[in-house]
Amino acid sequence: MARYGAMFGPDVTFLGVDRCDVTDPGTYADADVVIIGAPFDGGTSHRAGARFGPSALRQACYLPHNGSRPSLAMRVDALRDLRVLDAGDVECYSGDIEGSIAAIEEAVRRIAGTGSIPIVLGGDHTIALPDARGVATARGRGRVSMIHFDAHADTGNVQFGHLYGHGLPMRRLDESGAIRGDRFLQIGLRGYWPEPETLAWMAERGMRSYEMTEIVARGLDECLTEAFAIATDECEGVFLSVDIDVCDPGHAPGTGTPEPGGLTARELLDSVRRVCYELPVVGMEIVEVAPPYDHADVTAFLGNRVVLEALSAMARRRKDAAGGPAWDPRQPLLDGR
Amino acid sequence: MARYGAMFGPDVTFLGVDRCDVTDPGTYADADVVIIGAPFDGGTSHRAGARFGPSALRQACYLPHNGSRPSLAMRVDALRDLRVLDAGDVECYSGDIEGSIAAIEEAVRRIAGTGSIPIVLGGDHTIALPDARGVATARGRGRVSMIHFDAHADTGNVQFGHLYGHGLPMRRLDESGAIRGDRFLQIGLRGYWPEPETLAWMAERGMRSYEMTEIVARGLDECLTEAFAIATDECEGVFLSVDIDVCDPGHAPGTGTPEPGGLTARELLDSVRRVCYELPVVGMEIVEVAPPYDHADVTAFLGNRVVLEALSAMARRRKDAAGGPAWDPRQPLLDGR
Amino acid sequence: MARYGAMFGPDVTFLGVDRCDVTDPGTYADADVVIIGAPFDGGTSHRAGARFGPSALRQACYLPHNGSRPSLAMRVDALRDLRVLDAGDVECYSGDIEGSIAAIEEAVRRIAGTGSIPIVLGGDHTIALPDARGVATARGRGRVSMIHFDAHADTGNVQFGHLYGHGLPMRRLDESGAIRGDRFLQIGLRGYWPEPETLAWMAERGMRSYEMTEIVARGLDECLTEAFAIATDECEGVFLSVDIDVCDPGHAPGTGTPEPGGLTARELLDSVRRVCYELPVVGMEIVEVAPPYDHADVTAFLGNRVVLEALSAMARRRKDAAGGPAWDPRQPLLDGR
Amino acid sequence: MARYGAMFGPDVTFLGVDRCDVTDPGTYADADVVIIGAPFDGGTSHRAGARFGPSALRQACYLPHNGSRPSLAMRVDALRDLRVLDAGDVECYSGDIEGSIAAIEEAVRRIAGTGSIPIVLGGDHTIALPDARGVATARGRGRVSMIHFDAHADTGNVQFGHLYGHGLPMRRLDESGAIRGDRFLQIGLRGYWPEPETLAWMAERGMRSYEMTEIVARGLDECLTEAFAIATDECEGVFLSVDIDVCDPGHAPGTGTPEPGGLTARELLDSVRRVCYELPVVGMEIVEVAPPYDHADVTAFLGNRVVLEALSAMARRRKDAAGGPAWDPRQPLLDGR
Amino acid sequence: MARYGAMFGPDVTFLGVDRCDVTDPGTYADADVVIIGAPFDGGTSHRAGARFGPSALRQACYLPHNGSRPSLAMRVDALRDLRVLDAGDVECYSGDIEGSIAAIEEAVRRIAGTGSIPIVLGGDHTIALPDARGVATARGRGRVSMIHFDAHADTGNVQFGHLYGHGLPMRRLDESGAIRGDRFLQIGLRGYWPEPETLAWMAERGMRSYEMTEIVARGLDECLTEAFAIATDECEGVFLSVDIDVCDPGHAPGTGTPEPGGLTARELLDSVRRVCYELPVVGMEIVEVAPPYDHADVTAFLGNRVVLEALSAMARRRKDAAGGPAWDPRQPLLDGR
Amino acid sequence: MARYGAMFGPDVTFLGVDRCDVTDPGTYADADVVIIGAPFDGGTSHRAGARFGPSALRQACYLPHNGSRPSLAMRVDALRDLRVLDAGDVECYSGDIEGSIAAIEEAVRRIAGTGSIPIVLGGDHTIALPDARGVATARGRGRVSMIHFDAHADTGNVQFGHLYGHGLPMRRLDESGAIRGDRFLQIGLRGYWPEPETLAWMAERGMRSYEMTEIVARGLDECLTEAFAIATDECEGVFLSVDIDVCDPGHAPGTGTPEPGGLTARELLDSVRRVCYELPVVGMEIVEVAPPYDHADVTAFLGNRVVLEALSAMARRRKDAAGGPAWDPRQPLLDGR
Repeated sequence: MARYGAMFGPDVTFLGVDRCDVTDPGTYADADVVIIGAPFDGGTSHRAGARFGPSALRQACYLPHNGSRPSLAMRVDALRDLRVLDAGDVECYSGDIEGSIAAIEEAVRRIAGTGSIPIVLGGDHTIALPDARGVATARGRGRVSMIHFDAHADTGNVQFGHLYGHGLPMRRLDESGAIRGDRFLQIGLRGYWPEPETLAWMAERGMRSYEMTEIVARGLDECLTEAFAIATDECEGVFLSVDIDVCDPGHAPGTGTPEPGGLTARELLDSVRRVCYELPVVGMEIVEVAPPYDHADVTAFLGNRVVLEALSAMARRRKDAAGGPAWDPRQPLLDGR
Repeated sequence: MARYGAMFGPDVTFLGVDRCDVTDPGTYADADVVIIGAPFDGGTSHRAGARFGPSALRQACYLPHNGSRPSLAMRVDALRDLRVLDAGDVECYSGDIEGSIAAIEEAVRRIAGTGSIPIVLGGDHTIALPDARGVATARGRGRVSMIHFDAHADTGNVQFGHLYGHGLPMRRLDESGAIRGDRFLQIGLRGYWPEPETLAWMAERGMRSYEMTEIVARGLDECLTEAFAIATDECEGVFLSVDIDVCDPGHAPGTGTPEPGGLTARELLDSVRRVCYELPVVGMEIVEVAPPYDHADVTAFLGNRVVLEALSAMARRRKDAAGGPAWDPRQPLLDGR
Repeated sequence: MARYGAMFGPDVTFLGVDRCDVTDPGTYADADVVIIGAPFDGGTSHRAGARFGPSALRQACYLPHNGSRPSLAMRVDALRDLRVLDAGDVECYSGDIEGSIAAIEEAVRRIAGTGSIPIVLGGDHTIALPDARGVATARGRGRVSMIHFDAHADTGNVQFGHLYGHGLPMRRLDESGAIRGDRFLQIGLRGYWPEPETLAWMAERGMRSYEMTEIVARGLDECLTEAFAIATDECEGVFLSVDIDVCDPGHAPGTGTPEPGGLTARELLDSVRRVCYELPVVGMEIVEVAPPYDHADVTAFLGNRVVLEALSAMARRRKDAAGGPAWDPRQPLLDGR
Repeated sequence: MARYGAMFGPDVTFLGVDRCDVTDPGTYADADVVIIGAPFDGGTSHRAGARFGPSALRQACYLPHNGSRPSLAMRVDALRDLRVLDAGDVECYSGDIEGSIAAIEEAVRRIAGTGSIPIVLGGDHTIALPDARGVATARGRGRVSMIHFDAHADTGNVQFGHLYGHGLPMRRLDESGAIRGDRFLQIGLRGYWPEPETLAWMAERGMRSYEMTEIVARGLDECLTEAFAIATDECEGVFLSVDIDVCDPGHAPGTGTPEPGGLTARELLDSVRRVCYELPVVGMEIVEVAPPYDHADVTAFLGNRVVLEALSAMARRRKDAAGGPAWDPRQPLLDGR
Repeated sequence: MARYGAMFGPDVTFLGVDRCDVTDPGTYADADVVIIGAPFDGGTSHRAGARFGPSALRQACYLPHNGSRPSLAMRVDALRDLRVLDAGDVECYSGDIEGSIAAIEEAVRRIAGTGSIPIVLGGDHTIALPDARGVATARGRGRVSMIHFDAHADTGNVQFGHLYGHGLPMRRLDESGAIRGDRFLQIGLRGYWPEPETLAWMAERGMRSYEMTEIVARGLDECLTEAFAIATDECEGVFLSVDIDVCDPGHAPGTGTPEPGGLTARELLDSVRRVCYELPVVGMEIVEVAPPYDHADVTAFLGNRVVLEALSAMARRRKDAAGGPAWDPRQPLLDGR
Repeated sequence: MARYGAMFGPDVTFLGVDRCDVTDPGTYADADVVIIGAPFDGGTSHRAGARFGPSALRQACYLPHNGSRPSLAMRVDALRDLRVLDAGDVECYSGDIEGSIAAIEEAVRRIAGTGSIPIVLGGDHTIALPDARGVATARGRGRVSMIHFDAHADTGNVQFGHLYGHGLPMRRLDESGAIRGDRFLQIGLRGYWPEPETLAWMAERGMRSYEMTEIVARGLDECLTEAFAIATDECEGVFLSVDIDVCDPGHAPGTGTPEPGGLTARELLDSVRRVCYELPVVGMEIVEVAPPYDHADVTAFLGNRVVLEALSAMARRRKDAAGGPAWDPRQPLLDGR
């Protein structure tokens, strides 16, 4: 697996953090988080373009690219309070899905193997397979649960005659034993896919999927709390998979398979914050940001903030664990406690 | 009235359902629902483009166009559980508003005359006149109520010197006796139109209009419940008119006369679901989707889902009426009851 | 300071209201409100384009430009019930920030000096300095509070080596004594700016900033009510500053520094309504609408409605003060009281 | 026919020239040219949007809207050397094609009746019928020839069952006797319409159509020279009809029925210049500019320049006729002769 | 190889021609031309999106989709004068480049095997390998020459570590023996790729590449004439490959790897016409139309016309061969010979 | 003057060339060319956005950003055959035009002072003043001529009351003595600005301006040849200023003040090539690329290629001067001499 700077665009790091080289673990031995791009969209079933996701997610910010982002909400500067590095992009040829999956998995496994948290910038959702399997391989197969924000279950069996693609990774993860079927927690599903046979298979495997109807009826926070309890039952770590299409297309138009009726951007940010503040996240991915369909970069900005929100919550979780007062969402911004 | 395949685009049916010929009732005698396009935008007072609505609404989906759409939320496959056919487009020349209205009304009346539910893909809101009048003529004038989602009341008297146009159909419907004034239920109005004289006329006719301020203050569900009670009082059927501009422009930019401050896409889908699940809908229209002003097809996707949501709720209503357990929005997706 | 018709576009007034000449106070002596444009974007730190804001905000409406806008919600026609005039644009050369600030401040001071309420159409947020200082100079320095809707605090000290810019005006206003530090009420902040040193300075000055986390946790209405109490404590007037980026980018993409996770358009309109109905607003600005980044004019439409919402609430406030029944948001639209 | 300021947008004049009132001939008795808008697109067979043409054509310029435009090429300032007035828009309801045609024709006839040259800003090409017939009625039926730049012949017989529409006006003009069949000179035709029967009818009527193949083979200038000779044979005046789709879609994307392989913008401007400098133009129209399909206003800018090029050439023709030295395209710009 | 209707969009045929089934040669035994789509973009090195090319190329026309297109220029109706059928899309999974190539080649070989001319709608240029090899296999390896319009030579050796991709097909074609190296005629190359080693290989293989500099210096027609002589030397048939990026990005923005300084749309249409009128074309492809990057469909319109131009010229070639008078580009359109 | 990496975007170099530090001449002492960005658009009179020009011009390429670009046309690899470095962006605050001009001039003067050729990536055309004056200061005031491609003369006297702006730099350059009035060679002017008084001043100063009419009448090559002779008369060096709006808006939509009827992209590239191959260019700028108005990056791609074309021609000029055979535009690409 060759290391590349940036496949589709100039060689820059996420908001200016330092670089590391995935093939040289010494360069990230002390990292808390390693960001890596997977510019792959060969697994899309409709609109491509997510190959430009890593480039967009790294750059979509109007502030200086200086490796510092103090969070107003969490009162930490995750890019400084944590050691966050960027390993560039894995070379992914969209025409070769199996080779790309292998290359991504190898990179993620190496990063997770050092104890760092890999954050993978997709790319289409095909990469959930190598991303989560790579983490599970390093952390213990069956010991990592999956919290999955998405409009789609991604549990299909075959796509265009193949076993790999952006509609299938969750089934492959279950089959491979990387993640137990009853530790898939899906938030935000809706629409008209998959068909009943697949839903039956999901039920049989013990998955727990929160469709938007249930979320509206019960409240998002209640659903999350319930899901969090399952996620940490007999699992030491959580993999967080955020498919940007969990948001309503009005908030995230730049994606391949938009499904109306989703979360607001505010709800997604708050949910990601809760996951990373309340749970032991050991890996993360943000996928399906497709810049060719974006407008004024609003989807790229959102994706960039999803990553920062996760990092900020991780940093605050660590800070509180070190003995600080618990984070209080009702605390006024300028109240200096 | 000549039958046409598709006026502005290739001759395709709604997500691949079977065809029928509106001039040959035998081809849809057994249909539950007949979809028909009204590619007319000659009645717009500002931005045109809704003529491409039927073509966009039929095609805006990333799933195979295979005549099947199993609803995660309603647990039915409306395109299969109901017999849904597509009659193509009525030939509408936007330069001839009176001829177009006549042609649309004739087509809708024929469809409704067989007992099928016509779903008309607009086109601008001018078509509410022939759509609802055609249904009322078949079902009984004064026996069908109107549930109308819109930013605008559409009760003006004259537009550019004419009696027909997208700002006037509700007045013409009342005047014609097709729908009783006190059975117009309007949801989502806001902004700066119409002027007090028209509002006074509406009050005099007994209309009930829920402006967004009341909806925010009281809650959308409470308002809908109240409106539903009126709608079924002394009426056997309901005509559902959905103007996509009832949604906030952020959720539905592709429309002609956007008014900020509207419903979210989620709220519209849930509302349409309630109408079609709780009430005896006998006709429907989705109007004012204007693709030239859309971005990444988000408005077209939403309009497509409004139709599918309506169909799914109708199918579920029928299923429950046949003795099944009532639909429960709190039921988990994978809970197999 | 030369008066100009319109700097970037044709010479039109806000929705067709009458004109006045800012250099001739006699032309607006009897005005309740004077609208004036500040087509300046030389203070932006990232995406420019707000220079076209005044032109867009004046024109973005699908209704006739006839100087009348009857509000469904407030039951007044602000453009007629109030005397609203438009003074055109202040000549602002974006390459000369100091000259532009001086010219804007002189114009605003003149308008406020007659007792009229200036409403300034920006332009970037740099203009908060001349806008609010111009009003405070006329109304009494330290006697006007600031209610500020924004994703950003705009309290930075230096921008690209300069003391003026769109990230700095609130600090300059405090320093100049125009507005007391403890009468800045900020609503909607979020994201990753400013850094802790600036937050500490804000706290020291007694500012009160409602970050989105607090707003979500406590509710927007509760936060507003609390802020309103502070705003009127020892102050006779309120300056309302609306940066369109307080809204989520999905609702307001056409802006320079979009920050995901903001208010909905509905929330902003309702908030502006409350400010102008409940408080003695003596000046207002709407800033950071950047048409080059807009889509289908949705941000321009929103900005136009923010101005109309403010005007309508001001008109209703005046009407109720004259002895009418208090405005009731739960009153049905067609209930003719 | 009611006079309107501007149907779709603010009430502004072409680049700031003075106004006149088409119903009051005294207001334009001394005018050389009267500009009038026809915001009608009800006759389009595909993409609408040309209703916003008049508004766009009046405003699309980055220079001050001050009623002055000194031409570098022609060394005249047409907006000052000629008396050019703007009569606003004819009220055109796109849903009523016959009423709109009548209203436009009445307005054009009035203008031409005073000896002024009407320049009609379309709108779709339907308006060629009232535009040219209005001029011919005033100037003498059969005494005015037609020079017609277009990708399409516009000589169809019936469109969607009607006799009026943007594909038919040239046939109606011939039938009405307004313009002799053998005085239609068409430049720039190409593509796959009309069918042979219509071509046969055109040949029979003696029309002369220069398809792009002939233009490429012989050279545009030679074709124009040949056409000009025919145009002035037994005719005292020329009506110039410019459909912006005569240009290649790369140069004019903002139009309804784009046909690849057309003229460059430079070729169109040079051709319009030759027509208006060499021939006695008595009326003109610019049609099919459809802003919803434009990008960065490039088509609107081009349409605006087509009008200015025509005006500049008319002014120079008049100046040379008054005894000046003939215009020389090879003369260096700064050569002060 | 499964046959699919349409992979990404509704199942429609090219402008409404009849269908055939590539797996059943009897359905196209009598066809002159069989159109088939290859919705594959897994071989792109930069911007994807060409998977939507087949859908766009079939539909991008403002005329009725009625299987008739009378060419003004060539005086034939190719869709009627020839038997043109549409076989739908080959199922191509962009994530599986080798499988897609095999499926395409099988389909093209079958079509060419019946003596029909396959016209392949791409897709990215990867497909030149199966397209031309499929034709050469049927017609005789080494007996078909390649006329290749492109900004790029597409003769690279390896792309992202693979032997297949849109920058490599011409080398693979040479290596496979399908087409002799000295029968590659490349028109329109420019820019900064490939590097000297590849150019040396091309020279060694005897390729003839006309870079834009030579074309400008010598004239396009002279270069084509020279190339045509080579193409028919010892070859009985010609394969025509049109990469839309041979045109300047101003004329064809909707493509993946745009290189400024190319042909105009007019020049491309005229060149394609010459190839298909003067030479024995036995296969054709149009590639790299990428709708996500298009504006107002201008690139799709151009691609559609490239196909029609080719078909019209083929039809005219056949007609003239049958004894008609030779086509004369200088003949006036309405001159009825 | 503070050095900055990149003002608006990530810190990358032009296509991956090495960096240098403008404040440390030792870092570029051996450079042939130093690229530097001037992200300033405070001098625009209409649409802003050129501040993003440097970022776009550096990145707009689909090839790897590897510091190599072998030119097919010139048979050199300028990024390797020359020593080309990138000094990042000068910090330019668009609100401070005088400070920005000073900072840019200082940077350019330093670069030119080492004998390197500065290539400045704008930014609006205001920067011609510091760019050319900086070069002339280093090379000898009055000893450098100006070849200026533009739709506009940029010789105005005052803009919005100021002496600096994008419409004025050529007058300031003449006044300052940096460049002699009779050594301004302007190519591509057209449209309606400036007014006669300014033209008279230009004539008086001895400028030579080729308006498009003369260019069309005489041919671009003849005009260039004539201009080149003037440019080298009593001048040892040439400054090349390319305003992208010299091209037709169809080829370069992403700019602030587009004027229809300009050069094609091909003509601009060929002209830039001639300037840099035939003349002793000592400084260059590319200005007015405004990404917010671009589509699919076509203008940014063009601007990037203008720089590469210039570099390639410079490299070839040097190679031929070293004794190689003269470059022959008629030489076939694969002809290996």
